[in-house]
Amino acid sequence: MTNPTAAMLVIGDEILSGRTRDGNTHYLAGELTARGIRLMEARVVPDDQAEIVAALNALRARWDHVFTSGGIGPTHDDITADAVAAAFGVAIDHRADALALLQAHYDRAGQEFNAARRRMARIPEGARLIDNPISTAPGFSLGNVHVMAGVPNIFQAMVAGVLAGIAGGAPLLSQSLRVDRGEGEIAGPFADLAAAFPDLSMGSYPFVQNGAYGTNLVIRGTDPGRLDAAMLRLQALFGAGQ
Amino acid sequence: MTNPTAAMLVIGDEILSGRTRDGNTHYLAGELTARGIRLMEARVVPDDQAEIVAALNALRARWDHVFTSGGIGPTHDDITADAVAAAFGVAIDHRADALALLQAHYDRAGQEFNAARRRMARIPEGARLIDNPISTAPGFSLGNVHVMAGVPNIFQAMVAGVLAGIAGGAPLLSQSLRVDRGEGEIAGPFADLAAAFPDLSMGSYPFVQNGAYGTNLVIRGTDPGRLDAAMLRLQALFGAGQ
Repeated sequence: MTNPTAAMLVIGDEILSGRTRDGNTHYLAGELTARGIRLMEARVVPDDQAEIVAALNALRARWDHVFTSGGIGPTHDDITADAVAAAFGVAIDHRADALALLQAHYDRAGQEFNAARRRMARIPEGARLIDNPISTAPGFSLGNVHVMAGVPNIFQAMVAGVLAGIAGGAPLLSQSLRVDRGEGEIAGPFADLAAAFPDLSMGSYPFVQNGAYGTNLVIRGTDPGRLDAAMLRLQALFGAGQ
Repeated sequence: MTNPTAAMLVIGDEILSGRTRDGNTHYLAGELTARGIRLMEARVVPDDQAEIVAALNALRARWDHVFTSGGIGPTHDDITADAVAAAFGVAIDHRADALALLQAHYDRAGQEFNAARRRMARIPEGARLIDNPISTAPGFSLGNVHVMAGVPNIFQAMVAGVLAGIAGGAPLLSQSLRVDRGEGEIAGPFADLAAAFPDLSMGSYPFVQNGAYGTNLVIRGTDPGRLDAAMLRLQALFGAGQ
């Protein structure tokens, strides 16, 4: 069985200008990996409809799922919903169920449900709403594209909602070994081991601690028995006392 | 005068699996913005030659500069240099000046300059070396592509070297105003203001603090006088006491 694939599309000038550091991609990556969905690609694009449409159409044609983050608030720079509608070639308008959710939310808060806030009920035709338990304004899924807020706690809540409804795959497992040697010292035998386990993915990640070089060796795959077998070989090569 | 443009390409399975959180894009974004170079797009791709080549060729054709991060170490999963050579259709081999740098480095450290470490002297034909003051193994620039290490402190040192040698533009300035109101309350007048200053970019970034909604309003542009004028209008609309 092959694992489903996914891409992440982060939308927002604030990421590209360096004002904000994106953390949603890292969060999504961990959640997908735990569910056996492979994150194959991530992109960041500005608040520009043509850029969003081009990236969305490239990604949704290629991967099983596309997750987006950002641009669904009430202000003029929130253009993601319109861009998604344009990418799919469908209409977009205020939708009754989304309006009702938001009307009730602002009534409870004693705040005016003004035109800007009504913008958050603009949903492309044919989309399914994604629940927002934090601040009500919904995300939506259209085809294989899941459109979520950029604010991290809302993004995370929406991801949970989406992942509950889509099929995962065999969990993507990993095991790692920390070696107190530089990468260049272990690269040869490590490459040989990787060649002996072509069904696993092996990576090495160098670090410096207290002035000394070290390397984290990571083995990834879906078969726990194969991971154990490779880890035994790895420990025999580089484990404590070797 | 228009500002030069750039893209970032992060290379590495460990980012997409969620093992490592990329911080290099955020660092580069800040450095570029300070020098008046616009970061237009960022991508993350896996350690896969076809994926790296496709992304590199798309990005280098479109933007003035492409910065890459990751995949230039000594292990079998470090395939960036070969992928860059393939993308440009040039040869790649061990280069004498890079070999000499590394040989001297390992001689000083009393470590063997083995085949794995020699891999780090593989440089595509026609490239210029990027100095690595931290661990010696160089990055390189080929055409408009700047290839750097993924380890953050080495990446940062290499970025400094590259940016010293390329032309910037008028600094991209920003001013921001923190407003203790939700986005939905200020979106209407904020959109009108943005329309009155089409030469500036205006964004709004909501937050929640102690249970209350607030918004950071950010104005970006290159003309300090225009930024000041817009900020005066913004303060009149939403500043303390309004």
